[in-house]
Amino acid sequence: MSAIKELWSYFNEIKKLKYIEELLQWDLNVNMPKGSIEGRAEQRELIRGLIHRKMKSQKVGELIKDAENSNPLTQTDLALIREAKREHDHAKKIPEDLISEIAKTGALGYIEWEKARIKSEFSRFEPYLEKMVSLRTKFAEFLNTGPTPYSSLIDLFEPGATYEWIAGIFNKMKIKLVKIIHKLVDCSEGPDQSILRKYYETEKQWQLSLEIIKKLNFNFNIGRQDKSTHPFTASVSSIDTRITTRIWEDFLPACLFGTIHECGHALYEMGFNAQLRGTYLADGCSMGMHESQSRLWENIVGRSREFWVYWYPILQKFFPENLRACSLEDFYRSINVVKPSFIRVEADEVTYGLHIILRFELEKMMIEDNLQVSELPQIWNTKFEELFGIVPPSDKEGVLQDPHWIGGYGYFPTYALGNLYGAQIYHSTLKDLPNLPYEYEKGEFSNLLKYLTENIYQYGKIYRAPELLEKMTGEVLNPDYFIKYVENKFYPIYGL
Amino acid sequence: MSAIKELWSYFNEIKKLKYIEELLQWDLNVNMPKGSIEGRAEQRELIRGLIHRKMKSQKVGELIKDAENSNPLTQTDLALIREAKREHDHAKKIPEDLISEIAKTGALGYIEWEKARIKSEFSRFEPYLEKMVSLRTKFAEFLNTGPTPYSSLIDLFEPGATYEWIAGIFNKMKIKLVKIIHKLVDCSEGPDQSILRKYYETEKQWQLSLEIIKKLNFNFNIGRQDKSTHPFTASVSSIDTRITTRIWEDFLPACLFGTIHECGHALYEMGFNAQLRGTYLADGCSMGMHESQSRLWENIVGRSREFWVYWYPILQKFFPENLRACSLEDFYRSINVVKPSFIRVEADEVTYGLHIILRFELEKMMIEDNLQVSELPQIWNTKFEELFGIVPPSDKEGVLQDPHWIGGYGYFPTYALGNLYGAQIYHSTLKDLPNLPYEYEKGEFSNLLKYLTENIYQYGKIYRAPELLEKMTGEVLNPDYFIKYVENKFYPIYGL
Repeated sequence: MSAIKELWSYFNEIKKLKYIEELLQWDLNVNMPKGSIEGRAEQRELIRGLIHRKMKSQKVGELIKDAENSNPLTQTDLALIREAKREHDHAKKIPEDLISEIAKTGALGYIEWEKARIKSEFSRFEPYLEKMVSLRTKFAEFLNTGPTPYSSLIDLFEPGATYEWIAGIFNKMKIKLVKIIHKLVDCSEGPDQSILRKYYETEKQWQLSLEIIKKLNFNFNIGRQDKSTHPFTASVSSIDTRITTRIWEDFLPACLFGTIHECGHALYEMGFNAQLRGTYLADGCSMGMHESQSRLWENIVGRSREFWVYWYPILQKFFPENLRACSLEDFYRSINVVKPSFIRVEADEVTYGLHIILRFELEKMMIEDNLQVSELPQIWNTKFEELFGIVPPSDKEGVLQDPHWIGGYGYFPTYALGNLYGAQIYHSTLKDLPNLPYEYEKGEFSNLLKYLTENIYQYGKIYRAPELLEKMTGEVLNPDYFIKYVENKFYPIYGL
Repeated sequence: MSAIKELWSYFNEIKKLKYIEELLQWDLNVNMPKGSIEGRAEQRELIRGLIHRKMKSQKVGELIKDAENSNPLTQTDLALIREAKREHDHAKKIPEDLISEIAKTGALGYIEWEKARIKSEFSRFEPYLEKMVSLRTKFAEFLNTGPTPYSSLIDLFEPGATYEWIAGIFNKMKIKLVKIIHKLVDCSEGPDQSILRKYYETEKQWQLSLEIIKKLNFNFNIGRQDKSTHPFTASVSSIDTRITTRIWEDFLPACLFGTIHECGHALYEMGFNAQLRGTYLADGCSMGMHESQSRLWENIVGRSREFWVYWYPILQKFFPENLRACSLEDFYRSINVVKPSFIRVEADEVTYGLHIILRFELEKMMIEDNLQVSELPQIWNTKFEELFGIVPPSDKEGVLQDPHWIGGYGYFPTYALGNLYGAQIYHSTLKDLPNLPYEYEKGEFSNLLKYLTENIYQYGKIYRAPELLEKMTGEVLNPDYFIKYVENKFYPIYGL
């Protein structure tokens, strides 16, 4: 076998182990009995250990060298070599005892976070968080892939991105977003959500969610939907992508838009080129790019007026008592309320970016500027007030709301990058296919999917996100597309 | 680490991989989308390969030698060494290309079997079966663990058992069973099943099945029940045992007794001593012993009059229209009809043994006596008539009904051994706890479970089946206990 072929096959095996790890995790969240946690933890540790050893092995180092010297190499071969080098390099750099200390602190800290959040008691979470900050700082130093430690951590999720680059974009966005939000909030004509907070039977919501993703061309032959506490997407084999949703009987958007969001992730995973399936490149090119697709389908498509021209009559049939008297226009406005609020996961698409900027700035301070963890709640609240004009009534609605920081740092910014990538991608899509919104009115979404598949999904991890974005849209990332999208959509909703 | 400790830990890791393999298979049968077969097949192959390499490795050979020379060794240590040697020996003996040829032929042949069965077309299945017979014969020769090739295959499922030994027991049983069945069949007073063939709403059957296994002390904290085409039990981690059932709306026993059967398997798996959990000895001591427990709970307990004294009023509440006019006694008789029939999986507990004897004798002829596969359908029908007095109307109801032979040989006899072990174990249990049946009348099953756990389940794979049986009952396997159980139960039902 040629060296490059051997490298493919070596990484195919790693990918299979990763799919298995995904299945272990999917099952844990969807099916596993409560008392079985430890048994599953052992299995995940085993699979992770196998992956780590394979990534780190001398053999793969030699394989990479041999492959690099092979001839000819296709663009896809080069992408594999790039990823192989990156992963091998990471695995070699991080000491194994640091990895297991992070895993242990993360597991214990997560349990403590759950308790601390319920009681809004930051002090009991503080020592774990402090330890994690110090472990991840060490981790970043070992990694040393970016110009600064925080950049090294960001690079894990958004390859090539740095603090500097993201800060430049976010700062530009922040000023404009704050201005827009002020305008909207000051408006007395704004819509309200009360129609969404009636009682909606869960079984009907479930049926509707299945109907919607079917129409969005989610492929049930190689996928399924289940329920779980937190919605997520998991590819559990090369041809098996599963999403989950949650259903709240007194808040319709949780299931509705949660489902469309995860469906967006799944359409990306289901859209990889057949030749990439099951290979190490069968993955999104970055977390931000992946998130751009979930948000594009959820927000840009799923919260558009045209989408509801088709779906609202169906929704009304599902819930005639709640919706009979509500016009399409009022419903459309109700799902597009913009309002500063405390909880990130419940935020609208406009204020969402500010939630992320807050976290991004705090992460930077924790990893690089010696921000004391004990000061976090205070700083959180101060910064929150600067951004949103309101102060969280307790840490439960403040610094304790998300579990991310007991895992790592650098992930949050990718959520907001997702909004920006998505708006720019969609703008470019509409230039080629200006009739798309009219198709939504007829319940037709396949041309959008086809276009996104051709321009993004099929490539998997072959390109880096900025490269792919430029290839598709002809431009580097420009947050103005998102700002313009927001203005064009929300000013009319608010009668401005 | 001492050598014996290292051996435990080495085999714990193998066990974890086996649990993962079980999860892959459980998920395939319960959740997996139809189009995802190939992705899953690749994963199973990977995990199996990892297990095989670990079993075969020189390292484990050395570990075993070192462990054998360790001091002191407990009985459990010795059992681990015994199992480790056995598995290492098997892995070394069988060439890898033979293993993969068997896997390939099995996979292709299974698909062909499904088609052949539907069309009752033996000829299209014949070449695959012929190939499998020849591959398994080779396999048995490589194995060479028993006095004859077929015995080597039997030993895989029932360690230590031989053709000779089983044939001796089966021949004894056959004569008596045939006599009993004649008596019962000739009886004009026999019960009938029509009450069970009414329409029973599937959702209610499902709810009832959950209530029953809860009462039987199935532990939902470390287990769950789902639906699948063929019922099965799978331990998917050291503390996670799952069963499945199937529900037929026009035949009540499918779900009812299928559920109790699998629950019996699960109670065994849930009953391993805490120290054995997650180790290589966390397993039934043989397939026959495992089956003895599923059948004990299903037939000896679940089809007893006392069981239904408690459950029948509840069943009547579930299905008042069907059962209001049916007395407990009539219901009890309806679930204990003895009647020669063509399909093994639908057979009653008395005729069941003859179905197994037929297969046992044919397997012997295929592996050792050059029985031509092309002659199988004819010989099947001839032997079937000898045993049951009826001839299958087609191969679909004859030789094509079971898929087992496209996998291997030597498994079938363990089903009937299960009945025999079970009757002897239960006889001995009643000597110590004669009041058990009165407890069932009150819905109390925990003392039976406690007793079986103490005497069988807790030991896992520490003892071999004959050893454990003798330790518990004071006797070697004696089929007369089963015969006596059958006579004592069925003669009264048939008014004899």
